[in-house]
Amino acid sequence: MRVFIAGIDGYLGWPLAIHLSASGHEVAGADLLLRRQWVAEVGGISAQPIASREDRLSAFEERFGKAIDFRVGDLMDYDFVKEFFKDFQPEAVVHLGQMPSAPYSMIDQAHCVGTQENNVINNLNILWAIKEAVPDAHLVKLGTMGEYGTPNIDIPEGFFEVEFRGRRDRLPFPRQAGSWYHQSKVHDSHNTHFATKIWDIRATDIMQGVVFGTQIEEMGDDLRLRTRLDFDQCFGTAINRFCCQAIIGHPLTLFGRGMQKRGFLPLLDSMACLRLAVENPPGPGEFRVFNQFENAYSVTELANMVKAVASEIGLEVTINHYDNPRTELEEHYYQPDRQHLINLGYQPTRDTRSVLRQMMLDLQDNRERIEAHAHVLIPDIRWDSSRRRSEIIG
Amino acid sequence: MRVFIAGIDGYLGWPLAIHLSASGHEVAGADLLLRRQWVAEVGGISAQPIASREDRLSAFEERFGKAIDFRVGDLMDYDFVKEFFKDFQPEAVVHLGQMPSAPYSMIDQAHCVGTQENNVINNLNILWAIKEAVPDAHLVKLGTMGEYGTPNIDIPEGFFEVEFRGRRDRLPFPRQAGSWYHQSKVHDSHNTHFATKIWDIRATDIMQGVVFGTQIEEMGDDLRLRTRLDFDQCFGTAINRFCCQAIIGHPLTLFGRGMQKRGFLPLLDSMACLRLAVENPPGPGEFRVFNQFENAYSVTELANMVKAVASEIGLEVTINHYDNPRTELEEHYYQPDRQHLINLGYQPTRDTRSVLRQMMLDLQDNRERIEAHAHVLIPDIRWDSSRRRSEIIG
Repeated sequence: MRVFIAGIDGYLGWPLAIHLSASGHEVAGADLLLRRQWVAEVGGISAQPIASREDRLSAFEERFGKAIDFRVGDLMDYDFVKEFFKDFQPEAVVHLGQMPSAPYSMIDQAHCVGTQENNVINNLNILWAIKEAVPDAHLVKLGTMGEYGTPNIDIPEGFFEVEFRGRRDRLPFPRQAGSWYHQSKVHDSHNTHFATKIWDIRATDIMQGVVFGTQIEEMGDDLRLRTRLDFDQCFGTAINRFCCQAIIGHPLTLFGRGMQKRGFLPLLDSMACLRLAVENPPGPGEFRVFNQFENAYSVTELANMVKAVASEIGLEVTINHYDNPRTELEEHYYQPDRQHLINLGYQPTRDTRSVLRQMMLDLQDNRERIEAHAHVLIPDIRWDSSRRRSEIIG
Repeated sequence: MRVFIAGIDGYLGWPLAIHLSASGHEVAGADLLLRRQWVAEVGGISAQPIASREDRLSAFEERFGKAIDFRVGDLMDYDFVKEFFKDFQPEAVVHLGQMPSAPYSMIDQAHCVGTQENNVINNLNILWAIKEAVPDAHLVKLGTMGEYGTPNIDIPEGFFEVEFRGRRDRLPFPRQAGSWYHQSKVHDSHNTHFATKIWDIRATDIMQGVVFGTQIEEMGDDLRLRTRLDFDQCFGTAINRFCCQAIIGHPLTLFGRGMQKRGFLPLLDSMACLRLAVENPPGPGEFRVFNQFENAYSVTELANMVKAVASEIGLEVTINHYDNPRTELEEHYYQPDRQHLINLGYQPTRDTRSVLRQMMLDLQDNRERIEAHAHVLIPDIRWDSSRRRSEIIG
């Protein structure tokens, strides 16, 4: 299939280009390379060195024997998106091209507005470009499990049957997102659902858990094909950050009580799930929601898992609790479904420890890069928009 | 109280300035006068002539013996909003300053994106400006009953108790809005709710029905104090459009079967409800949702009511069904609550017919203005983004 990847230079976008190409699909994509700027803005760096766009494309061509149409352009520019779709005629559009960080969106008014403006408008542009250029194409939109928040009931996949005052209906499951970034994804979900109703567009809205991992098998040994891995407070997600901390002997940073539960999944699972969504499109006008994660873990469980694997390779790890810069429940019920992808053939990686082991081996090669940027490991962006470094509380 | 009105030049904003001033409140406000441009863009005109900003302010000062701080400025400009709040120190902020038309938002990509960009960002700016300049101020945010769509169960006021798989929670009621404009209001509701959680802001989110009416009593006989009344396909709402059609002998335009039910309320009820919300603020961090309407009617009931009142003043009216340019259910369950405002003292106008009679008398004076713009009465903006004039189907 012809698959367009919006955000093809990112943590997920680049491995997806490789994974889909290795599976026989034809890939094109766009990226404005903003992620590289944003990480630099907050003082971070990718723990794994990443190649320039040009070197990535050369390495890709050497490995797969074909070129990739990767254009630098802004998804906020409607004409750019529409013309690219007209040229490439994608059968599927995977939309990963957004600002992906909760803390970054919480910095101040400008970052809040910038996040919502970018994410909401570029998703609208993609919906319109599908309608006007490739109306039969299937949109696979990356959302987040964080759209749901932490309700005190099970979390179904997008919709639920409700009885209220003696009548019944099937309704969208209420979203209670916990940052301006997560809210932008909620807005996208509403807009995407509406577009499927009025234009008969096909869409899959992916509520993805937190991804961890340094590589996928199809990258082989060519380091130019590796994806980025961030560990700063904005773009470094929990397990990736923990692994980097373990490598340099920095205490793992749990926020508050550390009992927050979330869905997590290895990078290879994320790639397999996105491929399954692409290869199994819904019908015209259908709006599917997939909860996409391997399993739900508390942050404490994950920290203990990282500690155990680290000790197997000779690294001693301590775990510290820091005062929580976020406004969130630290103990809560959490029981999300994830049956839709299983039904399509998703086989969750059971061996999370071997993924963690590979990550730590990859990251050990980059110990000096992490050490040189260790100052980004302690958060200071608070949900009340003040800036204050978190202190150890236990 | 000091009340700031965002959108003070609009159909609701201007009467609210008068109503609140007459009730002893001190009013200031901002407007970029875009509504005047948008109506002209779609070929419309206010059926009642409206005074310029300068003449409005002179008439206001003559009537109330005090000036009003009404600045022309853009709510998308954060510094403008924040500085104005710092100067005026509002205790309540009523946010009516948005693009309010469903069909206008459905015209094309640019109008869709423009609507969401304007509405989402200016609401974020107001939230941030409250947080940073007047954190104790109460935001009264105008939303719409259209945020809920037409679910097959009762519509509570913002939240409901749900039982799901044997567990219970109180959750936001799911929103299923039917246009890009209505979706923008859903996004605002989510953002506003989130702001109350993280910043302890006070907010009332008004899910308002469709407003009709040409004046409120406090305007007296000074025509310079009258508010606008639109009848074009974009900015003319159902009853206002029906009354204008009745005046010039144009058939009333029902879309499709005309069994669509919505909440409606006279302009004077809207003013009274907004005043009640302002005068009874919630506590810090509280997010209240008010469903605000006098009663739920089907469009056919309203057309028949307009026809009956018109015949009392000697106007013969026919009612025609046109093919529906919108994608919407034409027959559906509709049972929304509206208890919160009643609890605060709202007494719904029971005598809708006398409101309609006054409207028609006011509009008869402007028959020629309406006749000269009768071409805007038949819709051609379709929900699939094509343009085709609706035809009579019965």
